[in-house]
Amino acid sequence: MGAADTERDRREAGNGDGMARAELTNTRSPRVKAAKRLAKRAFRERDRIFLAEGPQAVREALKVPGATVELYATAEAENRHPDIAAAASEQGVPIHLTSGEVMAELAQTVTPQGLLAVCRLVHVPLAEAVPAGSRLVALLAHVRDPGNAGTVLRTADAAGADAVVFTDASVDPYNGKCVRASAGSLFHLPVVTGVRVAQAVAHVREAGMRVLAADGAGRVTLDEADLSGPTAWIFGNEAWGLPEEVLALADEVVRVPIYGKAESLNLATAAGVCLYASARVQREK
Amino acid sequence: MGAADTERDRREAGNGDGMARAELTNTRSPRVKAAKRLAKRAFRERDRIFLAEGPQAVREALKVPGATVELYATAEAENRHPDIAAAASEQGVPIHLTSGEVMAELAQTVTPQGLLAVCRLVHVPLAEAVPAGSRLVALLAHVRDPGNAGTVLRTADAAGADAVVFTDASVDPYNGKCVRASAGSLFHLPVVTGVRVAQAVAHVREAGMRVLAADGAGRVTLDEADLSGPTAWIFGNEAWGLPEEVLALADEVVRVPIYGKAESLNLATAAGVCLYASARVQREK
Repeated sequence: MGAADTERDRREAGNGDGMARAELTNTRSPRVKAAKRLAKRAFRERDRIFLAEGPQAVREALKVPGATVELYATAEAENRHPDIAAAASEQGVPIHLTSGEVMAELAQTVTPQGLLAVCRLVHVPLAEAVPAGSRLVALLAHVRDPGNAGTVLRTADAAGADAVVFTDASVDPYNGKCVRASAGSLFHLPVVTGVRVAQAVAHVREAGMRVLAADGAGRVTLDEADLSGPTAWIFGNEAWGLPEEVLALADEVVRVPIYGKAESLNLATAAGVCLYASARVQREK
Repeated sequence: MGAADTERDRREAGNGDGMARAELTNTRSPRVKAAKRLAKRAFRERDRIFLAEGPQAVREALKVPGATVELYATAEAENRHPDIAAAASEQGVPIHLTSGEVMAELAQTVTPQGLLAVCRLVHVPLAEAVPAGSRLVALLAHVRDPGNAGTVLRTADAAGADAVVFTDASVDPYNGKCVRASAGSLFHLPVVTGVRVAQAVAHVREAGMRVLAADGAGRVTLDEADLSGPTAWIFGNEAWGLPEEVLALADEVVRVPIYGKAESLNLATAAGVCLYASARVQREK
């Protein structure tokens, strides 16, 4: 617990002047290299950890007991977010004081916000995420764009979904862009990753849910669909929708009606309209 | 009509081998420089033209008579999209055969799709876009992210909105990223740009519309709000919502309910949920 002691010392000594701690300034140090390679999925899976960037993600990560392994922070960011330093200290999560140059090396954004958490993978088994009695679940069948996937995760959280399932043909939920787009929601609700679509559909059906696939070619519109019961939504790929074999797995294929001249909706927007339609109808009952 | 003739010749001569035409290969030619500088707003406004990139945007631009000034196409893209070459030919829009290198210089995407249209600005005056009797309008008050703005435009089109107003504190609708995110919708419905928020609100109210501001601090939820009449939605900035002076202009401030732990919704997702809620209620009546 040496790092936590150091953190306590620092906080007792004043307000984050960081003088008691060495700053990481070497962009080629083994520690920096080990964190930086987490940008690659293979290393995330091998080490079972990933990076969460920016104050919002770090704050949400720290709310999940045991999720955060360590933080990297510039002195400026640490001073700007005393709540984060305090939460880390409470949990015994070490904060590595980091130069701007090292932060720029580690961060995946163009203008890094000076805070980065190394977190343990948070996903859970399908059976744990979607127990019998679940009301609303989102299945990402073939979502390849990490920004879209993270936005769907954030939206599912907002709409009160019980869980989000990333099937094996979808992007990795721990992809840096997905983590950022989720705006902390990765730490809010059960997330499943790496299951096959057919396996996920069989499980949610077994758990008592009706399976609706969102697709522009749907037979019924969102307004016509029966959304009153427990519902699992399947969302597909933005460019080419859902393949036949996935559509065939659903109880119903549902389209968001297009009233204007647009050919389709953005995937994350369509998911938002569908998930909020379900939330509304389920709560009206 | 020389260019159209050339196009006809080419099509009669075979299937787009382009041998009769010179290919643009010099990335520093005056023509290439003139097109490339349209990435900057100042040049777009001075020359009253902008760039629309990719087959989808080019196809939609060509559906608006007189909107397209000229096309740039690689031989490969021209052959892959014979419908576009035909539509350009019909309208007398010249196609400049372009080397991959010149296309990479002109395109703003990492993997250019080989097609680029130079288009005339398509926006219209506020009074023309929102006449009395309009039913659904989106006002972008302080939307700075071009991807978000373009997605809202695409969503408003899909939801059957009558017009989209980009107020002067919002991003330029002709920003390349906004044009791409709109997926052709920039050419589908009346777009207004450069008006002040207060001016836009006064006009839509005069046109008989109720003005709703979407904001997480709203007094009523989307489900409680009266959406049955003609409605203009104000959407704000993702990071900080809508400023007090804009909220004060609205008849009602409405929030999308958050059922989970998410702090907020992505701006474009929130706009989608609001616009589709309006479309549904207006059509139910």
